[in-house]
Amino acid sequence: MKKSTIKDVAKEANVSIATVSRILNETGKGYSEKTKQHVMQTIERMGYYPNAIARGLINNESGSIGVLFPEVSAMVSAELLHGIESAAQAFRKSVIVCNTSSDQEKTKHYLRLLYEKQVEGVIFANERLTNNYQRIVTQMNVPFVTLSGTTEINHIPEIKVNDVQASYDATRYLIEQGHTRLAMISGNPNDLIAGAPRIDGFKKALKEARLPCEDTQICWNNAFYFDDGKIAFRSIIKNHPETTAIFAASDELAAGAMSEAHAQGIMVPDDLSIIGYDNTKLAMMLIPSLTTVSQEFETMGYKAANILFQSMMGEEVESLTMKHKIIERGSVKSVNEKFKNQ
Amino acid sequence: MKKSTIKDVAKEANVSIATVSRILNETGKGYSEKTKQHVMQTIERMGYYPNAIARGLINNESGSIGVLFPEVSAMVSAELLHGIESAAQAFRKSVIVCNTSSDQEKTKHYLRLLYEKQVEGVIFANERLTNNYQRIVTQMNVPFVTLSGTTEINHIPEIKVNDVQASYDATRYLIEQGHTRLAMISGNPNDLIAGAPRIDGFKKALKEARLPCEDTQICWNNAFYFDDGKIAFRSIIKNHPETTAIFAASDELAAGAMSEAHAQGIMVPDDLSIIGYDNTKLAMMLIPSLTTVSQEFETMGYKAANILFQSMMGEEVESLTMKHKIIERGSVKSVNEKFKNQ
Repeated sequence: MKKSTIKDVAKEANVSIATVSRILNETGKGYSEKTKQHVMQTIERMGYYPNAIARGLINNESGSIGVLFPEVSAMVSAELLHGIESAAQAFRKSVIVCNTSSDQEKTKHYLRLLYEKQVEGVIFANERLTNNYQRIVTQMNVPFVTLSGTTEINHIPEIKVNDVQASYDATRYLIEQGHTRLAMISGNPNDLIAGAPRIDGFKKALKEARLPCEDTQICWNNAFYFDDGKIAFRSIIKNHPETTAIFAASDELAAGAMSEAHAQGIMVPDDLSIIGYDNTKLAMMLIPSLTTVSQEFETMGYKAANILFQSMMGEEVESLTMKHKIIERGSVKSVNEKFKNQ
Repeated sequence: MKKSTIKDVAKEANVSIATVSRILNETGKGYSEKTKQHVMQTIERMGYYPNAIARGLINNESGSIGVLFPEVSAMVSAELLHGIESAAQAFRKSVIVCNTSSDQEKTKHYLRLLYEKQVEGVIFANERLTNNYQRIVTQMNVPFVTLSGTTEINHIPEIKVNDVQASYDATRYLIEQGHTRLAMISGNPNDLIAGAPRIDGFKKALKEARLPCEDTQICWNNAFYFDDGKIAFRSIIKNHPETTAIFAASDELAAGAMSEAHAQGIMVPDDLSIIGYDNTKLAMMLIPSLTTVSQEFETMGYKAANILFQSMMGEEVESLTMKHKIIERGSVKSVNEKFKNQ
């Protein structure tokens, strides 16, 4: 099939080539809405699509942004990506997705690939953008944002919730329900994004309430997954059988703890309360449904992409702290009420 | 920062420009492994990256493939994408992800966008590639594959499980455990991929076993989500209280049914057995863990991408039917055993 050219379109639509070009570049000037619709219909009918690669060479724009994800919860990255993608669609940008497996060499490889492809901006998600990437980031010379992550490199906006505060609030919530013997299932404490800060928030709430706070109350295995939650739960029950409430640093960890509790004949929430973190779709599907800290991933992805696009257009942009909130469901029991009823 | 050129690299590495070019294009000829390593290190040190857009114009290759997803379960698409992405990395291709929301106009829009970007191939996932897309597919003139979907357009390979057979096997499994009063929670029966074929498999198994098979035994709400499962479960309990086992056409539907059963005081699997479909990560996280039909999404994504790459290299490719299997967990009770024990 012979490809139509811009000349064919102009002839067919009975307008000038310049008009077609203006409409395609969405200049908004020099044509009426009616003409625009007529030309777009002609383009559609004739199957003319400008060559984006050639256009990219002229405008020095690839029309793409890159998104780097480590291997986090599939549910978290799917929701973030969905938000990014909605924003990108509005700006007619395409999204190139790279999975770094939290591996530094793989991350560098992907950054080089994105550089080669001349992406116009990069979203670095769920990971720390360390100084190790300084050189390639400088070379790329396009805007970056970190999403649900942090950066050691200056002038890169961070879009994330306040993890310390959110974890403090989750722990406070358990304390306000009357619990005094608390434990935490953490991810890896060396994780500077979702590990250490959430432990800090947990400790802060306990200390403030003058509750016991030994290091052995904080258990973890490896990461933030279901099996890690199961394993950590066993340590808690072994070392702190007096525990009545657990703060888990992800919904998957909470799900693992709940599964292991069930296996051991411990009833949630009657014998033990559990609060999660993330509010992924999993939370509502568990039995009992999981009380958790909500991070609005889709909104976060959408906002991060919009901040990136603003930055790409040369606007000044800033970091954004997203709101979090406690979603009350069925996995936490109020011990206050129990006393009230007696 | 001044960008290095291929000339700078050749000079620095003390080789000819042609050698650098051969190495970058991975011709495999005209240079030793040692030279290759030396040149690659020089490239790394100098921060020289060839301009992929310019290279794309010369080779008529964009280095990208496009993947279209409707808004299916985040868990399913995340696993498929992970597999696609692993394969793409090995071929040094980047993956452009588009979310179509199962909307025909949005799908066309994305196909045009991918055409503009001159992707070298397209994976059409979880959706039916109807004749409505014939024109743009012909214009694009690059290989397509459907993944966990079907096509009305000739010569496009389909990578999927046999849904009729898999549903038949799931239903057979319930029957072999001694169940005789079965019901099904279906997705939308008008869905020609995951709707009608799974109903066919269910009916086939019942008829073959000469078990009751009325249309009212098959319930659905709208789609394949958690809430749909809850709503459909209520119809089953209302219209067929004699039911002892349910085949749900997705894990999320099964999760919804289990949640509603719990709310109604019906114990799974003691009062009622449930088998799901997909084997997403959710299945093992439920309480009891969900017996389900496994589709190996990550492998399917990987294979679909490899078939696409083969096709892009001009090889003959064919459709591929992926294996499925029953993953036995805790949500199905054998009624045979019950009789045995009495």
